[in-house]
Amino acid sequence: MALEVVLGIDIGGTYTKIGLVDREGSIHFEDEISTRGYATIEEFIHALHSHVMQSLEQIETSFLLLGIGVGAPNGNYYEGTIENAPNLAWKGRIEFVKLMENQFHLPILVTNDANAAALGEMLFGGAGDMKNFVMITLGTGLGSGLVVNGDIIYGHDGFAGELGHVLVYDHGRQCGCGKRGCLEAYVSATGIKRTVYEMMAEENIESDFRKIPFSKLKPKMITALAEDGDPIAIKAFERTGYLLGRALADTVAHISPARIFLFGGLAKAGKWIIDPAKKSMEEHLLPIYQNKIDIVPSALLKKNIAVLGAAALIWKRLDKKTGN
Amino acid sequence: MALEVVLGIDIGGTYTKIGLVDREGSIHFEDEISTRGYATIEEFIHALHSHVMQSLEQIETSFLLLGIGVGAPNGNYYEGTIENAPNLAWKGRIEFVKLMENQFHLPILVTNDANAAALGEMLFGGAGDMKNFVMITLGTGLGSGLVVNGDIIYGHDGFAGELGHVLVYDHGRQCGCGKRGCLEAYVSATGIKRTVYEMMAEENIESDFRKIPFSKLKPKMITALAEDGDPIAIKAFERTGYLLGRALADTVAHISPARIFLFGGLAKAGKWIIDPAKKSMEEHLLPIYQNKIDIVPSALLKKNIAVLGAAALIWKRLDKKTGN
Repeated sequence: MALEVVLGIDIGGTYTKIGLVDREGSIHFEDEISTRGYATIEEFIHALHSHVMQSLEQIETSFLLLGIGVGAPNGNYYEGTIENAPNLAWKGRIEFVKLMENQFHLPILVTNDANAAALGEMLFGGAGDMKNFVMITLGTGLGSGLVVNGDIIYGHDGFAGELGHVLVYDHGRQCGCGKRGCLEAYVSATGIKRTVYEMMAEENIESDFRKIPFSKLKPKMITALAEDGDPIAIKAFERTGYLLGRALADTVAHISPARIFLFGGLAKAGKWIIDPAKKSMEEHLLPIYQNKIDIVPSALLKKNIAVLGAAALIWKRLDKKTGN
Repeated sequence: MALEVVLGIDIGGTYTKIGLVDREGSIHFEDEISTRGYATIEEFIHALHSHVMQSLEQIETSFLLLGIGVGAPNGNYYEGTIENAPNLAWKGRIEFVKLMENQFHLPILVTNDANAAALGEMLFGGAGDMKNFVMITLGTGLGSGLVVNGDIIYGHDGFAGELGHVLVYDHGRQCGCGKRGCLEAYVSATGIKRTVYEMMAEENIESDFRKIPFSKLKPKMITALAEDGDPIAIKAFERTGYLLGRALADTVAHISPARIFLFGGLAKAGKWIIDPAKKSMEEHLLPIYQNKIDIVPSALLKKNIAVLGAAALIWKRLDKKTGN
């Protein structure tokens, strides 16, 4: 009997990753193509289609392709569009699902990358039977997927769940969105880097960071220096975790999730970010919420959650139809 | 044919209000009893039952009672409990639905008063076909009911939607919950009153408030003085609206509602609170959310939304069963 699979596609600013995912979350084939170098979205989709078709021909297992799920920056689940994504070359409102359907002739669904990650955790990760949880992705920015009653919150317009842009400080750090003081300007790979340099300005503490120019510092070097006992690295994690925990307490006051998952480069720092975040969240919670909610790394931290989550879009839709 | 009705009960700290509500939201009978003076919850429920039964006997219309919906502070929809409500005499975790069922032998549902208000707006008010909206109740405190995909967000434990306790200022004003800097310490009938006195301390502006002791100031006097052009009253509304709008922008980043309704004494101030709230919300929103979301007074501002909303709990459950 042919194996039923879904094609998961994760469109990033630089690479687009693809994978064939079965209902158990096993990835049977993985590959990537460049996202750049295509002047129009039509050219990109054409190249993607050619690449996928060539790849599928080489697979020896007999399989049935049930649909294509796509995670993309500013992907809108309701509208099937990608709208003004800052990191993609194609501007304006792209009728992405329509263009994909015309090329692939398969059911297509799209959402943003953080919502896809939440769906990946729901179907294939650590969410188990949880109907209410939060996924925070800590990459260059801070993305979020909020799950209530077993479904992603899309909101009235498909754009809900932008926790990277809740306010941390009035008149605070400049954010890429045009506002100031947004959470992702403090809590993200770039946010913690800014904090390291702020702390070197504030404190006279000796630190290896003083030898590294801003433009050369990679976020994972902060974890490495924290492991080595560098006081600025440790303080930077404490400050970042504090602000994450404070913001998560407000998220709990909104939707009272059972668990909060962290994904992305900064989540790989583990206890360095999770311990201060947990402490700060508890300090800021109403008593009714205290000591109930975990902050944990995603169970898919070492897997391709973006491709798994994109595929999960289709699997979840199929599960609903069959009542699984 | 007998008229189908639901009994809506709103348990407040001082009075418990009751009303018979039909599917169209008409109230056919209204009354209240004291909430105080009952040492145990059993005694209170017994008195409530006697009172309801006596009242029903006097109604001449033929009716069928389909169930009882109750709005109560800290009412938990999932558990059917009232847990540690600060304004009620009965402490700890009360098995409220169970006790009510034993007395009334009817289907009983309970939730907190702000969720009930959101349900009232959904079934009988200005929410129409909206599947995603927010209800903010501005009374002594600030309550909230969040609606996503047509359902109240209860969260994993039944306690979601406590926007009165999101953080406005680190180390800010003391809140009744034990924390500091909570939204309701700034945005509520008591919050704006505190702001009036803070402004008299900060500014040398002449104001009629300078003749009124803190203990004597009623919140509606602030609206009256704003109407008269008192500069402290006007500034206090601007500040209160600013903070409400800033907090609502964060709520939008979570759930992207189509509309935000305001209810309660402070909502009756109308433009004085809504105009600065709307301006501030727009300033703090991501561009994708701007100029899409209304802040409006509840369509039930002059009606008994608490009783209507409590009854709506049962009507909504019945609608779901019949697929309406």
